Amino acid sequence: MALKDTLREVTSDIRKGKLIAIYDGDEREGEADLVFHAGFATPKKIEILRKDAGGLICLAVDKGIAERFALPFFSDIISNSSYELKTMLCKKTAYGDKPAFSVPINHRNVYTGITDNDRSLTIKKFSELAESGEGKQDFCNNFYVPGHIFLLIGSGIENRRGHTELSLELARRAGISGTMVLCEMLGKGKALSKQKVKEYCRKKEITFIEGREIYVRK
Amino acid sequence: MALKDTLREVTSDIRKGKLIAIYDGDEREGEADLVFHAGFATPKKIEILRKDAGGLICLAVDKGIAERFALPFFSDIISNSSYELKTMLCKKTAYGDKPAFSVPINHRNVYTGITDNDRSLTIKKFSELAESGEGKQDFCNNFYVPGHIFLLIGSGIENRRGHTELSLELARRAGISGTMVLCEMLGKGKALSKQKVKEYCRKKEITFIEGREIYVRK
Repeated sequence: MALKDTLREVTSDIRKGKLIAIYDGDEREGEADLVFHAGFATPKKIEILRKDAGGLICLAVDKGIAERFALPFFSDIISNSSYELKTMLCKKTAYGDKPAFSVPINHRNVYTGITDNDRSLTIKKFSELAESGEGKQDFCNNFYVPGHIFLLIGSGIENRRGHTELSLELARRAGISGTMVLCEMLGKGKALSKQKVKEYCRKKEITFIEGREIYVRK
Repeated sequence: MALKDTLREVTSDIRKGKLIAIYDGDEREGEADLVFHAGFATPKKIEILRKDAGGLICLAVDKGIAERFALPFFSDIISNSSYELKTMLCKKTAYGDKPAFSVPINHRNVYTGITDNDRSLTIKKFSELAESGEGKQDFCNNFYVPGHIFLLIGSGIENRRGHTELSLELARRAGISGTMVLCEMLGKGKALSKQKVKEYCRKKEITFIEGREIYVRK
């Protein structure tokens, strides 16, 4: 399939709430994430992520939403603190980027926060709030920290080419809010190999896309 | 099996590096965690946790180690900061306790931090450092934040009866360092039911213990 078609198919899938797989590139993490738009979160989708992908279930948000909800990068919280941890801050990961982590949140109506029902609720409610246009007051009233959904802040595809930015770029192209759920696909010991990711995608009828198919077409 | 025997069996299992399951109690989270001592971390055990349990893979450390490594509670970092997030702090979860979260770390030799190999390395190295008697300088030199292993700080079984304290109490009784790996066992939508946890334990020959069997025998 030509690059253009894959991209069109993927943005259409995202708009419909379908799962897709994004492989960042051999030169970066060499890893695929299972991804879907947060507005379509269900307990079943969370179950698929934890069982079939196996990594950390995160919620990537674009810069605009992060600013509206006054969400800082985790690194900024630590570097503006007076804790010893300051000396432990990760400036650059082994694959060359700064971590995208903000803080982990739960919606106030969860019980433990970690079940499929709870994680789905936190994600769905976050997405609804982001789309409602409400600001930080509503965010603070409806969510708490520390929780079990790991927020990531997108730095823009022109600045960083991680799964955070790649998935948010797809949301932007699909014309929907910048709130994407992602989870690393793991294999034995290591990231699931590109070949095995492709096999999984074929079997489950999930569209597979590579980072370069997203960012070369800016 | 009598309470005493279960407790003896569980501490013996922990000393051998075996997995055990701890159910906190119907009145609390109503949830079981798969647990083992951090010194016995292997990629295979991490794989079992993510596949068979499905929750968040965390590393519980006792107060002494947390103090030695200058590890704060996540809540303290936020409440001592000037971020809006302060108003979002969780004072009490739905099941009645304050969260035990500290910060998420990676060992400096990981690649992405999330694979079975990487999570196992971070956990194993943390446990070795804790046992070596080294202090915060070595901790800061060997680990970074933010990472993918979620540190939890134990408040002591006399103050809190979460999986963090229950597992650390078992380490204390087993006479080994206070570094325990834990992961919530999830079922369809909700926490895996007590009955299904027991079935799993029977099938896999894993010892099952309840919170009250640990704390009533202080």
